[in-house]
Amino acid sequence: MSSIELPLTRESIVAAHKLIKPHIHTTPVLTNTTLSNLASTPQSPEALKGTPWEGQEPAKPKVRLFFKAENFQKIGAFKVRGAFHAVLRLVEEKGIEELDVDIQSSGNHAQALALAARTFSIPAHIVMPSISTPSKISGTRAQGAILHFSGSTAAEREAVVADIIKETGATLIPPYDHPHIMLGQGTMAHELAAEVSALLAATPELSVHYKTGQDDANGISRKGGELDALIAPCGGGGMLSGNALYFHNTSTRVFGAEPSFEGADDARRGVAAGQRITSVKTLTIADGLRTPLGPHTWKVISDKDYVSGLYAVTEQQIKDALKLVLERMKCFVEPSAVVGLATVLYNEEFRRMVEREAGEDGWDIGLIFSGGNTTIEAIVKMFGDVSEDKAKREEGIVGADGKKVAENVAG
Amino acid sequence: MSSIELPLTRESIVAAHKLIKPHIHTTPVLTNTTLSNLASTPQSPEALKGTPWEGQEPAKPKVRLFFKAENFQKIGAFKVRGAFHAVLRLVEEKGIEELDVDIQSSGNHAQALALAARTFSIPAHIVMPSISTPSKISGTRAQGAILHFSGSTAAEREAVVADIIKETGATLIPPYDHPHIMLGQGTMAHELAAEVSALLAATPELSVHYKTGQDDANGISRKGGELDALIAPCGGGGMLSGNALYFHNTSTRVFGAEPSFEGADDARRGVAAGQRITSVKTLTIADGLRTPLGPHTWKVISDKDYVSGLYAVTEQQIKDALKLVLERMKCFVEPSAVVGLATVLYNEEFRRMVEREAGEDGWDIGLIFSGGNTTIEAIVKMFGDVSEDKAKREEGIVGADGKKVAENVAG
Repeated sequence: MSSIELPLTRESIVAAHKLIKPHIHTTPVLTNTTLSNLASTPQSPEALKGTPWEGQEPAKPKVRLFFKAENFQKIGAFKVRGAFHAVLRLVEEKGIEELDVDIQSSGNHAQALALAARTFSIPAHIVMPSISTPSKISGTRAQGAILHFSGSTAAEREAVVADIIKETGATLIPPYDHPHIMLGQGTMAHELAAEVSALLAATPELSVHYKTGQDDANGISRKGGELDALIAPCGGGGMLSGNALYFHNTSTRVFGAEPSFEGADDARRGVAAGQRITSVKTLTIADGLRTPLGPHTWKVISDKDYVSGLYAVTEQQIKDALKLVLERMKCFVEPSAVVGLATVLYNEEFRRMVEREAGEDGWDIGLIFSGGNTTIEAIVKMFGDVSEDKAKREEGIVGADGKKVAENVAG
Repeated sequence: MSSIELPLTRESIVAAHKLIKPHIHTTPVLTNTTLSNLASTPQSPEALKGTPWEGQEPAKPKVRLFFKAENFQKIGAFKVRGAFHAVLRLVEEKGIEELDVDIQSSGNHAQALALAARTFSIPAHIVMPSISTPSKISGTRAQGAILHFSGSTAAEREAVVADIIKETGATLIPPYDHPHIMLGQGTMAHELAAEVSALLAATPELSVHYKTGQDDANGISRKGGELDALIAPCGGGGMLSGNALYFHNTSTRVFGAEPSFEGADDARRGVAAGQRITSVKTLTIADGLRTPLGPHTWKVISDKDYVSGLYAVTEQQIKDALKLVLERMKCFVEPSAVVGLATVLYNEEFRRMVEREAGEDGWDIGLIFSGGNTTIEAIVKMFGDVSEDKAKREEGIVGADGKKVAENVAG
């Protein structure tokens, strides 16, 4: 979209953060004792039935979790970071008078861009299929964007987009596969690193590295409050690549998490096969993660120097993690937001790796709550048919993973 | 429960706060532009149909809302404040060795007291009906409390309690109707006042009194960041009376909110009649507010010098407010937590009073999210049958009050 291509480095992310900071929320980092304890408890042997680890002793990783709550971000999702960065870079290049912004999607990205464009009084064009639900149409209109309708195929949409660009000179801003977007999303890592460092300076006992009676002034044994690892959800890869760029060459290893349903784990499968998967068709409940990687995000994510590993979780694991976040952390998040937590809690491959790699202390792990844009209706639909698990659930004593869980404890 | 009776004053609350602060979370104060704007939008004429204000022009109050998020408190509810205060005062009086604590309830109060008792290694006895669900029994056991079972009538429970007290010398700690509990709950007001003041010093434009281009150094026209009003949910009245004691003789007026379902608005009705209502039998979804006032809380709440007014809201209004808090604020709260918000949004009597009393600026209003101890199952049950409103809701453009609402906007 732009002729200026910033280098994909931590410095570019810090510069991006300086640019967008006045327009976004600095979202809080949350901790939760109950969830950290759950993640540090071995899964039950039953939970491993039917997996490659059946019959083996469940892993015993020791972890403390730090949640970056982008569900409290403007428009309810991290997408404003990349959107504001892309728009501000375009303004630098072309000036506001020259600028129309073009958007093809009608999801969080469209809302984020519409907000960014409105902030600078730049016209934003959004192309939606004419069969969209009235709520989406009116919702998007409420953002002050100019609506265009098209047929529902990609070709029909792209034709309308091409027409708008021709007529208005508008610039198409892609949802994830562009350096400006990736660097913009990486700004959450910059905040997270500073917040975790400040949090552990004030409350060192939150860290897995905290040792009482140590010489170390702040009580943390190995290092000064840096995360050992971070897990980001991975759809198109804008957020994961941004985080990976920021933490490159630091002591924080970056991992990606995906849903496995109907092949939504395209990044994991692509990296395993050494070739980008360019098309995905999945209806995973983690609806923000239904997209494949693009060429730019693939380049970062497929590089082991940037992303140390990719893990996939099932629909049931996503639902179980979602339930824990709502009921225990009292945070309203969308299913896509919890694939990282589901990985820590239920992916035995990941848990064994942590046990193996982390040494005696364990790991402080950062997780990204990417957004909170779901509805009660969607929750009702997702959990409405609980008949199968209902008996056990109503007992309240056994989580879906077979673990005993304490009731109603907010850490 | 105790021979020491502290005076019911702001000073006693400040002293209580100093005592319990190491053991509780200082919960955050949240703001949300979308909800403040909704509350400042007149209700539709349709929403007033069948009410005394039918046919009249809907009120146009101007308000900014400040939410004290006690759903993020330990055990997920404000109850730990009173519980820790009561236990710490008893420890002062009797010493830990002498102390057994006795609890009759199995809800948030029991969990809070069990946590407080465990913190000081004091045995806590909890009396539950033997027909309690296994989840409640195991959940309470997980708190480390000593369980006793009784029949399900009040008389049968009280007989078991009397036996325990005789055998162990335990002290019964009531859930709300005691000065120690009331003063403990009042500590949230002490935090709230300081937090709002700090918030408005840093971000004066959050206040309804903010005027650009004013001489006033911090841009706030009338005063230095004090709330004009506070609305607290009212069940047994521990929280409402605690808040009222704290804000007595300040410029912050305190109001109470109750569900109207099956007579749950006992405080409002009692104050109107000049006599305390001693028994309530209601199954309102705001299950934390099913209790009547006790003699101590009545004394404060029925005094106009302390509580300026009481308002009631319907089950549908509670559900609508709950939906907004989950979907727009991304906070997971229990139905009891939103009766204050429901009052500001939908109680026309309250809204007209604000318009009348607030003058040109409007009011900065504090609201208490009392807790977040509900479950996805309860949400599914509450919202599962949306067939009636479903068409409109799926449109997404019209809230249950008939107002247009923007989608997915976290303020």
